[in-house]
Amino acid sequence: MPDASWPVLAPLLQAATAGRDLLDDTLRRLGPDAVTAALLAEIGEVEHDVRLDLHFDGVTTSHLRTGADLVVSLDLADAVRTLYGTERRWPSLAVSTPSAGLDEGGVGAWFRARRDYPAAVEAVLTALRPPQEDLGALAVRFGSDKWGDLHWYTQHYERHFARLRTEPVRVLEIGIGGYDDPDSGGASLRMWQRYFRRGLVHGLDITAKPGVTGPRITTVQGDQSDAAFLDALGTRLGPFDVVIDDGSHLNDHVRTSFHALFPHVRAGGLYVVEDLQTAYWPSWGGAPDGGAGTSIGMLKSFVDGLNLAEVAGPRVNGGYVQRNISGISFHHNIAFVEKGLNAEEGGPEFLRTLC
Amino acid sequence: MPDASWPVLAPLLQAATAGRDLLDDTLRRLGPDAVTAALLAEIGEVEHDVRLDLHFDGVTTSHLRTGADLVVSLDLADAVRTLYGTERRWPSLAVSTPSAGLDEGGVGAWFRARRDYPAAVEAVLTALRPPQEDLGALAVRFGSDKWGDLHWYTQHYERHFARLRTEPVRVLEIGIGGYDDPDSGGASLRMWQRYFRRGLVHGLDITAKPGVTGPRITTVQGDQSDAAFLDALGTRLGPFDVVIDDGSHLNDHVRTSFHALFPHVRAGGLYVVEDLQTAYWPSWGGAPDGGAGTSIGMLKSFVDGLNLAEVAGPRVNGGYVQRNISGISFHHNIAFVEKGLNAEEGGPEFLRTLC
Amino acid sequence: MPDASWPVLAPLLQAATAGRDLLDDTLRRLGPDAVTAALLAEIGEVEHDVRLDLHFDGVTTSHLRTGADLVVSLDLADAVRTLYGTERRWPSLAVSTPSAGLDEGGVGAWFRARRDYPAAVEAVLTALRPPQEDLGALAVRFGSDKWGDLHWYTQHYERHFARLRTEPVRVLEIGIGGYDDPDSGGASLRMWQRYFRRGLVHGLDITAKPGVTGPRITTVQGDQSDAAFLDALGTRLGPFDVVIDDGSHLNDHVRTSFHALFPHVRAGGLYVVEDLQTAYWPSWGGAPDGGAGTSIGMLKSFVDGLNLAEVAGPRVNGGYVQRNISGISFHHNIAFVEKGLNAEEGGPEFLRTLC
Amino acid sequence: MPDASWPVLAPLLQAATAGRDLLDDTLRRLGPDAVTAALLAEIGEVEHDVRLDLHFDGVTTSHLRTGADLVVSLDLADAVRTLYGTERRWPSLAVSTPSAGLDEGGVGAWFRARRDYPAAVEAVLTALRPPQEDLGALAVRFGSDKWGDLHWYTQHYERHFARLRTEPVRVLEIGIGGYDDPDSGGASLRMWQRYFRRGLVHGLDITAKPGVTGPRITTVQGDQSDAAFLDALGTRLGPFDVVIDDGSHLNDHVRTSFHALFPHVRAGGLYVVEDLQTAYWPSWGGAPDGGAGTSIGMLKSFVDGLNLAEVAGPRVNGGYVQRNISGISFHHNIAFVEKGLNAEEGGPEFLRTLC
Repeated sequence: MPDASWPVLAPLLQAATAGRDLLDDTLRRLGPDAVTAALLAEIGEVEHDVRLDLHFDGVTTSHLRTGADLVVSLDLADAVRTLYGTERRWPSLAVSTPSAGLDEGGVGAWFRARRDYPAAVEAVLTALRPPQEDLGALAVRFGSDKWGDLHWYTQHYERHFARLRTEPVRVLEIGIGGYDDPDSGGASLRMWQRYFRRGLVHGLDITAKPGVTGPRITTVQGDQSDAAFLDALGTRLGPFDVVIDDGSHLNDHVRTSFHALFPHVRAGGLYVVEDLQTAYWPSWGGAPDGGAGTSIGMLKSFVDGLNLAEVAGPRVNGGYVQRNISGISFHHNIAFVEKGLNAEEGGPEFLRTLC
Repeated sequence: MPDASWPVLAPLLQAATAGRDLLDDTLRRLGPDAVTAALLAEIGEVEHDVRLDLHFDGVTTSHLRTGADLVVSLDLADAVRTLYGTERRWPSLAVSTPSAGLDEGGVGAWFRARRDYPAAVEAVLTALRPPQEDLGALAVRFGSDKWGDLHWYTQHYERHFARLRTEPVRVLEIGIGGYDDPDSGGASLRMWQRYFRRGLVHGLDITAKPGVTGPRITTVQGDQSDAAFLDALGTRLGPFDVVIDDGSHLNDHVRTSFHALFPHVRAGGLYVVEDLQTAYWPSWGGAPDGGAGTSIGMLKSFVDGLNLAEVAGPRVNGGYVQRNISGISFHHNIAFVEKGLNAEEGGPEFLRTLC
Repeated sequence: MPDASWPVLAPLLQAATAGRDLLDDTLRRLGPDAVTAALLAEIGEVEHDVRLDLHFDGVTTSHLRTGADLVVSLDLADAVRTLYGTERRWPSLAVSTPSAGLDEGGVGAWFRARRDYPAAVEAVLTALRPPQEDLGALAVRFGSDKWGDLHWYTQHYERHFARLRTEPVRVLEIGIGGYDDPDSGGASLRMWQRYFRRGLVHGLDITAKPGVTGPRITTVQGDQSDAAFLDALGTRLGPFDVVIDDGSHLNDHVRTSFHALFPHVRAGGLYVVEDLQTAYWPSWGGAPDGGAGTSIGMLKSFVDGLNLAEVAGPRVNGGYVQRNISGISFHHNIAFVEKGLNAEEGGPEFLRTLC
Repeated sequence: MPDASWPVLAPLLQAATAGRDLLDDTLRRLGPDAVTAALLAEIGEVEHDVRLDLHFDGVTTSHLRTGADLVVSLDLADAVRTLYGTERRWPSLAVSTPSAGLDEGGVGAWFRARRDYPAAVEAVLTALRPPQEDLGALAVRFGSDKWGDLHWYTQHYERHFARLRTEPVRVLEIGIGGYDDPDSGGASLRMWQRYFRRGLVHGLDITAKPGVTGPRITTVQGDQSDAAFLDALGTRLGPFDVVIDDGSHLNDHVRTSFHALFPHVRAGGLYVVEDLQTAYWPSWGGAPDGGAGTSIGMLKSFVDGLNLAEVAGPRVNGGYVQRNISGISFHHNIAFVEKGLNAEEGGPEFLRTLC
């Protein structure tokens, strides 16, 4: 479940791309200390002898190596805007270095004493303005099987998630990895946490995963075939911008989870189903023709659902799912279902027999 | 068929985003006069008393109202880079105005004499650096039925075509509009010509359309149910980056055209099928379940084809279509088939019975 | 002075790029009716028979032609995000048309009845998602002399303002135009109001301009050579992201205004001075060498101020201006002064005599 | 001097963002083997057991570890477009792995055998589609003193160079670093080589630097105070898109180099002068007021030059420099001079005495 930091994190992530006045109001409301704590948790360890001074409303607080002579200083709001927002510059940035004995020792001594400064300052600033890495590289770094274990999925994720990458998304992934080991798994959650810099990332697994933790990451234990549980989960943690089903891959589980969780996806969001190959394998509940009852069969029926106005009648509304899927994209073993109003009217009856 | 301007246009469109040296070489090879003619055809009429001076290799030529006192002057290459490329600036731009009697008549007379200059200069520059308009607005301007006649397709086109918009695409659309009137139709071709500023736009219709013309637009008369004809057409005019089937919408025509033309789509390109509602209507050759033999049934079978490695065997290659579709997206009554290698391997056999 | 709409507008503009939750909270706090009123003022007149339905928290309200059969409907938050934010899609969009007698009259009658629908829907949607027009085109449309009267400034503005264009800026321009006519002028204010879709645009003029009005535009009467007045103005309406001095162009006015208003520019913002040619003209208070006492002389002294650490001493802080200018850009007759901390330390003394 | 690879590299870099047809023509003309050699030199060493297969015109060639079982294969043109162009996708990408004994050994053995595959494939693909790193991070990696030695310049470079980053620029930097050691220095050249992925990077130094080498990097020995030499250099290696003077920082050298090399900067390009603090230091040839005869004095005179039409007369053309500087930007100790036509006309004489 979300830990104590989330009541600060959630509104902070929302405000990071707002106008500066609204951001300042939010920082004031949440308290600069709580915001700074969230920000330092995000940065993590910096392996250099450098101090970070943050200013807010006329008060300056020191962080990281507070005894260091090398100081990076900037406004708290400027830091939040590059860390969680899309801003690239810090108009308030200043670097200060020791002035004692500035001229003693001559050129060589002066430069030697400062040898580590560039890397130290860069380390702090890079942590506050992290580069946008490719998802494949992140998958390799964290060991996610979304790249190369059986599949090379990240290329598809990058395309479909690109427009969401800088949004304060709520992500739910079913399947944390690591089987029944409570301390194992979480590779994909960590990948998403890095990919979505403003994202709150929830993992659901049949096994409790107390050992899988991290900033903006939380895990829930539960059964993806239990519709009532999923519905309650969605009510508590949603709406989600992204749901990814990388759970059991049993066909009836996939169908149950979709119907329970799709109502908890936000309009404009995506519901993703991985490992659709099991749709064709009987021992997983599939069928060689990928027909009715399989996961891929369900998705193909949604294709027909998109065209319901022409199948059922020009002004007939379908059910919830038909009315709220605006698009479906298929690639090898993976599908992206887009939530959005499918309300385009069908034409008049006479068109049906015009030919 | 492409007219006399295409041997100049095609390489010019290719070079507009190349490095400046390669662009200059291309202009030299094509001849600045021929390039200028293409550029002036693109600009069309300018309703202001203004001259356009273009420089290339030390030679300046005057265009538009050659007797005008108000002169916009710039390098030919700079003009090509904003018109057909993605550049936004003209470092060579100069505007000159009459200097005779600069001080006579005083303030009022001076400003009155120049009243039309801003609009005149802006008209030339806007023509050379046309704004990227929304596809919906272009559809309304040209009267394309892709927006609002029966469908609101342009939102889907904008998403899927965005990455191609600034590329030198070859587009083929089946169905020019205007029924059997040789001078009517072409609204969508004109829309695409504006949307794809670097695109060569071909229209195919069962009726000859000699009256449908325009820069970068050409029309071909032919039958979309004649596979051999389409194959020859693709060899002559392709490969295409985009094919759009907005033809008869008869189900067997749609299937025939797809199989004949898909091999002529370039890797990374898109094959689009509109008006898929007819897939459900028997009098158009459809079936209420959108099953085998219908256009939508064909497309749903491609979804299974994406997963062929898991259906047929981990190292089994499918046919041409299965092996060259990397993705399919469905929206209401429209589908986008993406050409690309579908070569991901399936996992080992034992996975199939692991559950 | 800002009118009654600004207490709603200002926070709304701030929230339009925030996360969806924070935007929804803001809409709830401001009241959907007040927000809708602001949004309708922005849209202005739509010359088509079309109704706009907006949903918020389960309540739908109808606007524009409330009796029309053609209805565009979407969530209020979706509308705000495209109008004032950077979002391009409306996942909640639906268009509905009359269903009565759908089949009567046959094909011809059906299409004829709907002839105006595409343009009508497009008009509403374009108003809610206005295209980003070139500043030159906006200058011509509104008659601003920033393009082509004496100068072709807009190219420079476009470069320097690009990163601010989608921000909720506060703009102050000195000089409204129209001389002593209270109803004349405002061309540039209208241009900025369109350019900065989220901007609050203030005009200051020595003449009261009650006739210059518009959404997000306000005017103030006052004297740009009165430092105390400007300081009070900055306190009341600032901080500004952009100040533009297009006032009297008298050299001492330019200097006085700069020193009074620069403290009211936000870090990261820009102070722009137009028509610097008067710096060289004695009758305007200038001098042919553009030296001390002239506006350009002041700006050139800021260039030296940037390097104060090396002129005065490696750890010497300059005055407010030296310490808060991070960059200056000059073009023909115009300069852009960038507010930002100029706190880079100078090197040790021994460097000064190393050669 | 440019080595044997440049006759291939230069046109290849030019063509990487051209249309696909022109790129293919260029590859054919240069020869796929020569192109592949350039590409492999760029990639460098890959520390994984992986083979790279490249296809062109129906011929496939194998590279990297040619005996490896793990194979990444793609079209040569696709590889060029991501390496040197702005494309992000490879529609021709396929990964193949050993199929022998696919089922033997069971789940554990199968996954163990493939453990290194994700990192290996990612390494090849990242090399072919390198991330855009911040200039500060690159400076630290290569040890350039443009970040943190005395100055924090990279933030300014990033802003002014952003629009050139993906262009096939020619860069000339005066001052290679490493004093009189022929094998030392080159940190900034390496930084630029990474920053400008399509750039040809030339370093000029008073000391010959045979030990400073790398793909797309070349060095020249020569004296920056020798105008005739610089002019000849510009004729042979230019025009340059970027010239950076980080040489001796002696004021007369700076002035001489500028006047000799500025004519060899391409319109739209930038001439940068670093370490302007020496302008204020007499022992470096400066003066405390940064006046005439100093480097900063020269640059301030260009500010007046921008306004020459108003100083000298409305239709008077200045000299080459006045006529070809379109803008100058100053920051702490650094200036960016922009090449471009400064041809805006001054207004009529009567304006000068209107006040």
